[in-house]
Amino acid sequence: MQQLWWERADLGYQHGRLHFAGQDLCELVDQAGTPAYVYSWGRVRENLGRLHQALSAHNIRFKFFYALKANRYLPLITSLKMSGLCGIDVCSPGELLLARQVGFAQEEISYTGTSVANADLDVLHRHPYVHVNCDALSTIRRLGECCPGRPIGIRINPQVGAGYNAELRYAGDKATKFGIYQDRFLEAWQLAKRYDLPVKQLHFHFGSGYLTPQLPQLAEALARTNWFLDQCPEIDTLDIGGGMGAPLTEADQPLDLVQWSRIIAQHAQARNLTIHLEPGDYLVKDAGVLLLQVNTVEAKGGTKFIGVNGGFNLQNLAVYYKTPFIPAPLQWDSQSPLERVTIAGNINEAIDLLAEEAWLPPLVEGDYLALLNVGGYGAASSSNHCMRGPFVEYLLG
Amino acid sequence: MQQLWWERADLGYQHGRLHFAGQDLCELVDQAGTPAYVYSWGRVRENLGRLHQALSAHNIRFKFFYALKANRYLPLITSLKMSGLCGIDVCSPGELLLARQVGFAQEEISYTGTSVANADLDVLHRHPYVHVNCDALSTIRRLGECCPGRPIGIRINPQVGAGYNAELRYAGDKATKFGIYQDRFLEAWQLAKRYDLPVKQLHFHFGSGYLTPQLPQLAEALARTNWFLDQCPEIDTLDIGGGMGAPLTEADQPLDLVQWSRIIAQHAQARNLTIHLEPGDYLVKDAGVLLLQVNTVEAKGGTKFIGVNGGFNLQNLAVYYKTPFIPAPLQWDSQSPLERVTIAGNINEAIDLLAEEAWLPPLVEGDYLALLNVGGYGAASSSNHCMRGPFVEYLLG
Repeated sequence: MQQLWWERADLGYQHGRLHFAGQDLCELVDQAGTPAYVYSWGRVRENLGRLHQALSAHNIRFKFFYALKANRYLPLITSLKMSGLCGIDVCSPGELLLARQVGFAQEEISYTGTSVANADLDVLHRHPYVHVNCDALSTIRRLGECCPGRPIGIRINPQVGAGYNAELRYAGDKATKFGIYQDRFLEAWQLAKRYDLPVKQLHFHFGSGYLTPQLPQLAEALARTNWFLDQCPEIDTLDIGGGMGAPLTEADQPLDLVQWSRIIAQHAQARNLTIHLEPGDYLVKDAGVLLLQVNTVEAKGGTKFIGVNGGFNLQNLAVYYKTPFIPAPLQWDSQSPLERVTIAGNINEAIDLLAEEAWLPPLVEGDYLALLNVGGYGAASSSNHCMRGPFVEYLLG
Repeated sequence: MQQLWWERADLGYQHGRLHFAGQDLCELVDQAGTPAYVYSWGRVRENLGRLHQALSAHNIRFKFFYALKANRYLPLITSLKMSGLCGIDVCSPGELLLARQVGFAQEEISYTGTSVANADLDVLHRHPYVHVNCDALSTIRRLGECCPGRPIGIRINPQVGAGYNAELRYAGDKATKFGIYQDRFLEAWQLAKRYDLPVKQLHFHFGSGYLTPQLPQLAEALARTNWFLDQCPEIDTLDIGGGMGAPLTEADQPLDLVQWSRIIAQHAQARNLTIHLEPGDYLVKDAGVLLLQVNTVEAKGGTKFIGVNGGFNLQNLAVYYKTPFIPAPLQWDSQSPLERVTIAGNINEAIDLLAEEAWLPPLVEGDYLALLNVGGYGAASSSNHCMRGPFVEYLLG
């Protein structure tokens, strides 16, 4: 059988059976049942290692903070903690407490929230060594009132963004809720001064899912930080958030980390900055698959529908952002002709389609299939819509 | 203060304070905290009563089955059960069991699933008096194998649909996963015969959120059932699903129930059919508000953002379907000039905007606001994304 575009050393067919992280998924599904999210710790580590290696080629100081919101499966985040390879980025009191509960020290935690409530600040007040990035003047003022003297970062809006699509641009032409714009930055800085909050860090996050073609925008965003840094010579750290993308289709190339790291390193060296990064989806997206069972195979209105026992409530990304999932049968006979099918979930809404116009070998009821590239923003933001919520999770080595 | 378009007897301002179902929401929020979903049982009953009254004007037999997926808050569905006004429509084993757990008898339950698994059929097998609508030949075959002799309904696809927008059309030009199309109906009927499943009911559901301008499509969908009914003289019941909409904006008029009921009654009388209806969102949508607290008021990039302590994870509809919410401050000074604002949630995603370009009186941090028309598909399909999931629920009288 010809190699499929997404196959790699730890994910692909062996004698027609899909293997992931050394595990025959047909065997696993017999034990685990479905729906089952299966993650590979090895792939997470490899993804993080790749970023680490790329930046290590340059003489810069850098540190990773895993963005917990992407996936909070306890064994996975415990493994990240035990590895010592990264700190953790949290965005709510619940996430902060969870990070502490799995063993992250306050000093390893970076908090970047939006629409921050006083109740959130109370939790930060009880964790004085957690680093906080403020994304609004309002937050600076209220944090200053309850935690005077605490060092902070300021999240800015660089007014340039990129991602898988327009809705994933977190900064750009349209005003977003994130960060402080240039026109109010000095006001923010003076506010911090008034409350004795030393501004040690600048933070931005300009989108989700950028690949090599979007690197010029990253360079532009970095260039735009110069004006902010010029105003505040005491800032020694730049947090460039996350957003590094993974290929979604055969047409995509993996992010060129040589170019990526060079762009970051040039900026860091020119300004003598320590770089913080918050990879979330980049670490877990292609390290997770969702296993489902085919229960209904039927042509309707000229379309062949493959009905499965899970729905978009388990993985919302395709509905939120029109980004595609990759369906892969657990067994694939290389002699089989391909046919065009639509994978339909079990939620009673018309938008509940997990893949459209996919070319797959003939599937029969009882077969299993995997959705690939679903390790991020799946379980972590799943719902019990139609009471179709239950699933199991597995972490492989 | 001039009446706002959405104000009504049980929802509106009294001396500048928003009242709902006789409750001063400012008082309630002091006790309940936020985020809080607040439902009005009175409004649910009124919505159901309005449908009942409209159909009662005609000499037809009809019965309601509340679509549980819209809202499964236990006090609310228990009240529905206790009222004796309706049965219940469920779509999964979890929903079936929940309906039983609050007291609905098997005979009061109608099950219409999609992508039905054998595990789902096992649960149906254990509830022999629950009515089942089959939306695929595959379901008929497998149900026939495990429950021979059981009366069924067949869900058809009338190939005409309407709703708030194109994505809410459940039947139409594009093939959907729902129901059996005309080209395979006789095959389905013969399959039912082979397994001794008496076909007693025809079911269709053609969209979600239809209003008066879409009534011609409803008439067309009903007309299209004629061909199916001609094939099966033993069918005595037509289930026309739900989908009745509520006004979303000032430009919308409430669904004209006189016209609506006349269209249904004409069809029912012509074919001597009992009508089943599955209102879900129509009963609960405008019977529920979400109370949130303003924590951040700030202009960013030329837009005034009102940050609140809840996000799209609590109410996904605006993101799924681009349908608007209605933000209403709990206190509104009639002297205040209005300003254009964007309501931003506390989830770290750019799409997390609860209202854009809303004209509201000036809000300050600490104020409260309600999102109106969010009683359906809110709590029931909420997630813990960013661990911003917790909320409380209240049922008012």
